[in-house]
Amino acid sequence: MAYDNNNVFAKILRGELPCIRLYEDELTLSFMDIMPQSEGHLLVIPKESAETLLDLSEEGAQACIRTTQRMAKAVKAALQPPGIMIAQFNGAAAGQTVPHFHFHVIPRHDGLAMVAHGAARADDVKLRELAEKIKAHIV
Amino acid sequence: MAYDNNNVFAKILRGELPCIRLYEDELTLSFMDIMPQSEGHLLVIPKESAETLLDLSEEGAQACIRTTQRMAKAVKAALQPPGIMIAQFNGAAAGQTVPHFHFHVIPRHDGLAMVAHGAARADDVKLRELAEKIKAHIV
Repeated sequence: MAYDNNNVFAKILRGELPCIRLYEDELTLSFMDIMPQSEGHLLVIPKESAETLLDLSEEGAQACIRTTQRMAKAVKAALQPPGIMIAQFNGAAAGQTVPHFHFHVIPRHDGLAMVAHGAARADDVKLRELAEKIKAHIV
Repeated sequence: MAYDNNNVFAKILRGELPCIRLYEDELTLSFMDIMPQSEGHLLVIPKESAETLLDLSEEGAQACIRTTQRMAKAVKAALQPPGIMIAQFNGAAAGQTVPHFHFHVIPRHDGLAMVAHGAARADDVKLRELAEKIKAHIV
């Protein structure tokens, strides 16, 4: 399927939509999920126009896992969640809602059920506070 | 936490337990999940002794995503699932059951609810048939 240049993450990459930015390098961008499944839920995307892991270049995949590992360590250091889930959905049948490749980095706590994705828009002030905490721990 | 040398995947890597092998290279191993959450559910692990993404070396992470991408493409080509979920759990609080880093590659079908992990041991003959189909499509 052809890549949709008007998807939300493509617009964020072009600066046409805002995001709460955490980290950026030549090939990737990381920002807060505004419909978080738990406190500290963040995303990592490639700058490359790829919809799924099947289209993404090997270089893009390497860059994304490098940033994902960096961000998982930062979230762990900043928020001390007992668990962290990494998830990446390919295709609507797998739960993909935005057709641009992305890794979810989702802090998990024992016995705390995850909020369904897209259930509610988080408070911006709260998201920005979390983002500052996480950014302070990026190595 | 210290790495537990007696976990199931460490035993598979040492050849002390069997697995239905799909792919192997210098740094990674891929094999069928014997308690699959859907038909074609497979795993990718590093040979390195690492429990989570937080401990895994950058080289190990790169090798794992490379093999995961290769295996996702093989599963897609072999079984044509409409969706593929990639999941990786860090810590029991995130759903990690074996304390050795692993990516889940899980084919997903619209409207087909996932079986809870560890619900049932799959039939070995069926798993081997699926493994042969997937192996035939590894590029």
